[in-house]
Amino acid sequence: MSTFGRYFRVTTYGESHCKSVGCIVDGVPPGMELTEADIQPQLSRRRPGQSKLTTPRNEKDKVEIQSGTEFGKTLGTPIGMLVKNEDQRPHDYNDMDNYPRPSHADYTYLEKYGIKASSGGGRSSARETIGRVAAGAIAEKFLHKVSNMEIVAFVTQVGDVKMNRDPLDPKFQHILNTITREKVDATGLIRCPDPSTAGEMIKEIEKYRGNKDSIGGVVTCVIRNIPTGLGEPCFDKLEAVLAHAMLSIPASKGFEIGSGFNGVSLPGSKHNDLFYYDEEEHRLRTKTNNSGGIQGGISNGENIYFSVPFKSAATISQEQHTSTYKGEDGVLAAKGRHDPCVVPRAIPIVEAMAALVMADAVLIQQSREYSISLFKK
Amino acid sequence: MSTFGRYFRVTTYGESHCKSVGCIVDGVPPGMELTEADIQPQLSRRRPGQSKLTTPRNEKDKVEIQSGTEFGKTLGTPIGMLVKNEDQRPHDYNDMDNYPRPSHADYTYLEKYGIKASSGGGRSSARETIGRVAAGAIAEKFLHKVSNMEIVAFVTQVGDVKMNRDPLDPKFQHILNTITREKVDATGLIRCPDPSTAGEMIKEIEKYRGNKDSIGGVVTCVIRNIPTGLGEPCFDKLEAVLAHAMLSIPASKGFEIGSGFNGVSLPGSKHNDLFYYDEEEHRLRTKTNNSGGIQGGISNGENIYFSVPFKSAATISQEQHTSTYKGEDGVLAAKGRHDPCVVPRAIPIVEAMAALVMADAVLIQQSREYSISLFKK
Amino acid sequence: MSTFGRYFRVTTYGESHCKSVGCIVDGVPPGMELTEADIQPQLSRRRPGQSKLTTPRNEKDKVEIQSGTEFGKTLGTPIGMLVKNEDQRPHDYNDMDNYPRPSHADYTYLEKYGIKASSGGGRSSARETIGRVAAGAIAEKFLHKVSNMEIVAFVTQVGDVKMNRDPLDPKFQHILNTITREKVDATGLIRCPDPSTAGEMIKEIEKYRGNKDSIGGVVTCVIRNIPTGLGEPCFDKLEAVLAHAMLSIPASKGFEIGSGFNGVSLPGSKHNDLFYYDEEEHRLRTKTNNSGGIQGGISNGENIYFSVPFKSAATISQEQHTSTYKGEDGVLAAKGRHDPCVVPRAIPIVEAMAALVMADAVLIQQSREYSISLFKK
Amino acid sequence: MSTFGRYFRVTTYGESHCKSVGCIVDGVPPGMELTEADIQPQLSRRRPGQSKLTTPRNEKDKVEIQSGTEFGKTLGTPIGMLVKNEDQRPHDYNDMDNYPRPSHADYTYLEKYGIKASSGGGRSSARETIGRVAAGAIAEKFLHKVSNMEIVAFVTQVGDVKMNRDPLDPKFQHILNTITREKVDATGLIRCPDPSTAGEMIKEIEKYRGNKDSIGGVVTCVIRNIPTGLGEPCFDKLEAVLAHAMLSIPASKGFEIGSGFNGVSLPGSKHNDLFYYDEEEHRLRTKTNNSGGIQGGISNGENIYFSVPFKSAATISQEQHTSTYKGEDGVLAAKGRHDPCVVPRAIPIVEAMAALVMADAVLIQQSREYSISLFKK
Repeated sequence: MSTFGRYFRVTTYGESHCKSVGCIVDGVPPGMELTEADIQPQLSRRRPGQSKLTTPRNEKDKVEIQSGTEFGKTLGTPIGMLVKNEDQRPHDYNDMDNYPRPSHADYTYLEKYGIKASSGGGRSSARETIGRVAAGAIAEKFLHKVSNMEIVAFVTQVGDVKMNRDPLDPKFQHILNTITREKVDATGLIRCPDPSTAGEMIKEIEKYRGNKDSIGGVVTCVIRNIPTGLGEPCFDKLEAVLAHAMLSIPASKGFEIGSGFNGVSLPGSKHNDLFYYDEEEHRLRTKTNNSGGIQGGISNGENIYFSVPFKSAATISQEQHTSTYKGEDGVLAAKGRHDPCVVPRAIPIVEAMAALVMADAVLIQQSREYSISLFKK
Repeated sequence: MSTFGRYFRVTTYGESHCKSVGCIVDGVPPGMELTEADIQPQLSRRRPGQSKLTTPRNEKDKVEIQSGTEFGKTLGTPIGMLVKNEDQRPHDYNDMDNYPRPSHADYTYLEKYGIKASSGGGRSSARETIGRVAAGAIAEKFLHKVSNMEIVAFVTQVGDVKMNRDPLDPKFQHILNTITREKVDATGLIRCPDPSTAGEMIKEIEKYRGNKDSIGGVVTCVIRNIPTGLGEPCFDKLEAVLAHAMLSIPASKGFEIGSGFNGVSLPGSKHNDLFYYDEEEHRLRTKTNNSGGIQGGISNGENIYFSVPFKSAATISQEQHTSTYKGEDGVLAAKGRHDPCVVPRAIPIVEAMAALVMADAVLIQQSREYSISLFKK
Repeated sequence: MSTFGRYFRVTTYGESHCKSVGCIVDGVPPGMELTEADIQPQLSRRRPGQSKLTTPRNEKDKVEIQSGTEFGKTLGTPIGMLVKNEDQRPHDYNDMDNYPRPSHADYTYLEKYGIKASSGGGRSSARETIGRVAAGAIAEKFLHKVSNMEIVAFVTQVGDVKMNRDPLDPKFQHILNTITREKVDATGLIRCPDPSTAGEMIKEIEKYRGNKDSIGGVVTCVIRNIPTGLGEPCFDKLEAVLAHAMLSIPASKGFEIGSGFNGVSLPGSKHNDLFYYDEEEHRLRTKTNNSGGIQGGISNGENIYFSVPFKSAATISQEQHTSTYKGEDGVLAAKGRHDPCVVPRAIPIVEAMAALVMADAVLIQQSREYSISLFKK
Repeated sequence: MSTFGRYFRVTTYGESHCKSVGCIVDGVPPGMELTEADIQPQLSRRRPGQSKLTTPRNEKDKVEIQSGTEFGKTLGTPIGMLVKNEDQRPHDYNDMDNYPRPSHADYTYLEKYGIKASSGGGRSSARETIGRVAAGAIAEKFLHKVSNMEIVAFVTQVGDVKMNRDPLDPKFQHILNTITREKVDATGLIRCPDPSTAGEMIKEIEKYRGNKDSIGGVVTCVIRNIPTGLGEPCFDKLEAVLAHAMLSIPASKGFEIGSGFNGVSLPGSKHNDLFYYDEEEHRLRTKTNNSGGIQGGISNGENIYFSVPFKSAATISQEQHTSTYKGEDGVLAAKGRHDPCVVPRAIPIVEAMAALVMADAVLIQQSREYSISLFKK
């Protein structure tokens, strides 16, 4: 479906060659200051074709709020937003259209719908993510108001080049505690906050570019300043909804929270997050954070952090020996230049989806908290 | 929330010390043969305390269908099911109750609800999964009727002992193609289909048991005989809903599909699944299956396979230096015997959740297929 | 579907001849005092076969809470409830089963599901409403805590005998302001609070009973002490969800709120509810209440009141010239004694459904109110 | 919420003075021919300010499809649509803004959201219905393809002037069987198919216009050529969802299906719809149709018909003695000319909402029908 969330929810529309892409965000709390200036920055971070030469006031992918705000404040009514497509016409048929592109969605869209957009995989286009990023920017503003919540994603792996993501490593925990979007973007378009690793990652990408090939990577995301009590047992545990959100992003292949896959070899005696009383914050905290900030599906107030692997881009200029729709063997090679690594551009999308999950969780829990205080009287 | 699914949907209730645990399964197609004998086997596989000594006709965790069937067939109306709890009374308060158990949900449940069950983390109890397994068994029967769909999960890692899960490894692909529940259970309660690895896993578990400690592991699951076209872009991609389902299982810490985390270092030229025409099946298939059977969120007819890491059990008999709810330092050690590795018992739960996801996806797509054929006329 | 509500939601199961009927109520706020004694009274009011001779401690339709409470308080987890069926076996086939009963659901259930319960219309049985009434009793307790909200339904019409329901009639407004369940039940099983009308209604019913016939009626319901701001534009206006709830009750044929159908002939100058400032309550109120307490889909703090017509019971002992499933003409006459007017028994069901709607609306709005106060700072 | 429907679902946005109003329609079956020419006619019927002088090619309220179609066919992806607002700026504050308009939603929106649009009641504006009508036109096209389903609404009452709506009246049944949109529009803008009644209705309206007053009315709607088996027990009975849809339309005050409110005085012996075998259609039909085409919440293949009362328009030029927001008594009179009866303009909105309900019900049942045929093998 094209709707995500329960109370704070976004519905998106649009594919590559239609008039516009956009979304409706329903359930945004009323009275919050909001203008397009709150939304545009993340859309600009998402935009393809960025480089050091990109002018800061580039007008591409410009969001236009259609409804739901007046005099710079939200009304509580649905916020319609759209971004016009530059290329609004279906493309003309050519030889390459006889082939379902390998590891694209051309074949599966056709199998599912019995028809497909001329652009190929329809909504599997990265352009679909514009609505998510716009909606996520609104969610982020709300979360910042609620608890100064901060969401920062960054690249921790490209191909075989990786940063340490061990939760018991103090350096990694320090990054989780201190990383900001400014620091992420300061490392250039690679968006890896560790300068030396960033340099190696760029080399890795250039190697594949030279080969007319592509390569994948891993995005790690941290959420800080989280109220306790968010997340709905048993099916909508906070990590379950985060996983849903992340696996809905094109090209993502997985999700791990806290200790994740490597944590399975930690015995309970090392994995368990022991409690202590924090004198400054006047509350229980945990000495370690292998849980990734969630226990039993509910936030415990520690940082939530998780990682998402993205496969190598499917569009490559190398020749591929594959089949036409009709079953005839043939050779397909994408024309033009293609981005050999889309992982850094996934950053604002991961942040947006995380924000949508958290905003929804906050609203659900706020509804309950009124009653809790009522019955405690 | 306690409901999972859209058209084939289960709602569960129950915690450790209440009268019963159970569920309502709504949307089950009518006219399907169904009795308790279809459901009990998976519940029995889920049950704790299994061992070679367990008598085969043990009556524990016996499911009772309450409604929705007559003369052994489903009516299309909701199927109520329940399993009585043996221990129906809240436990008495003792010293240990002053402590939130580390990496359990005692603390977060209390933070969320302002109250908690005497048993601790309420619905975070493994007993909550009974309703899922019962519902999943119904979903499986439906899927088997639809397309002979088969779902088999097995243990691929315990601690540091692991089977090869590389999608490009022919041996792993052979296991995915041929593994059955009979083969899984034939390897004993460890449920790892590779005999030598199974033996090492048992040793690994015994090591931690001796230490009053616990250890985690990884469950891999394969789904075969899947129609093309299942999965709903863009937010409810098939892998996104599977990830949601898996991360909702207690103690799971992640999810990866197809090439997963390791796949990020495969360049596009190796990762892309090239098409060929299969003369026997008279349809396009892919030469490799790094995608894990899903492209653009939609099934392509190849096997779907994914892995789920489970952390080490949080309850250990070792002393843990932690804090009381009030913030006083102290030492907590669980009494009694505790299962050092719960991963094998997660097998039927993973299968059940996978079945629920697939049954829902089938119903959604079947609704669309009628229209597709209509408009093709 | 068998689920109603978004945050305060009930899922029901069960038909006439299965083991039990019941429900799961999810989203009940935690920490609220709740035992079976809060639920049983409305179930007893709903029960058939009531008469002056019925002993007060009759054990029929006894509800058993399965989960979600401990030591008499709600845990915030789902509350499972069930009522055992006395007749747990499908009935044996007889001649009458060749006929779809006119204006019952036998025919439509068979058309929809391709199978039907031996009892006939499956979930169209009045027994299905037990789960609703049990869930509604919990909702009512919550609403009473929130704002002393009171919900009272009563019979205002049986056949041609009717009470004045004109919103501009001061006597009717007085009843709306003062009616209680005690007063309703004080008028006997007819549940019409006006003694002289009640007497005529009983005569009307006896007339149809004598004819082996049946008759319909109208239930009116008032909700008092309602916070302003409940109801979700634009599709889930409060009156829209109330209408949905009421039309889901078996045998109901309509819904009108405030001035309703007769109000269409009132010009705007008389229909508009003018505002005045209430010095006692320190807030704006309306001089009249033709709106029925809702404007633009949102509660304005005045009484909400609405009426629901119920058709005459379809089961009658008179001979009916109808057709078998196979299309053969024939004569059908129900055996045994049948209730000629089920309208008074609909009272607790109307109250329960109203309570479920209001509890859900309260939770949704409470979530928003936190943010409103946040942004006003 | 701003979303309606489950499989076939619309989400709308927009209020009076924002940039545009519009909607996203998700779940539209793929491969269906669709262009703006299918949608515009109902939008034009909805448009205010229509009169005999209105030019046929008036370009106001022109819908623009943004996505989801290509080369004139639906892709199965969400269809974004928008209609630009002519007046895109919030209005300037004036004296009248000190008053909550009686029986408008100004007061309740402010109470709910703590803020309100300068135009008054925000989404309670009739302009919100544009998205519904656009979505409904797509649903209608689908329904026509599925079963030649036809939906026709018409005015049966204005003030005290009314057509006979008795289901046992052959003349009324004849109208239900034969009425078309062409016939409805042929009677002029009053949209009452009975010429003599239409004339009286116009006089009635003129009377109130002369008085600077307004008047209400009743819209009746019939749906023909309906497959049996539509509608989901027990909470989403077909009539329950229709009632929900109708009460969500601004100014509607009720709903009745089949015999409705008047039917309560019909005894069961007259109300029951007896079956007969129809030799032409080779299926069971009913001799009468007091049920209104639905039994047990499920369509029985007969015409579905229902009526919806609309209150008199709240905006009148007469002086009204009311209160300011601050509680000061005062006099309010709307400036300018106001439509004294909006009922005829509700026609396409009623049709649209009915179409959305039916399209969703069709998709849900189609999903089930595949399984029914599977299990019958």
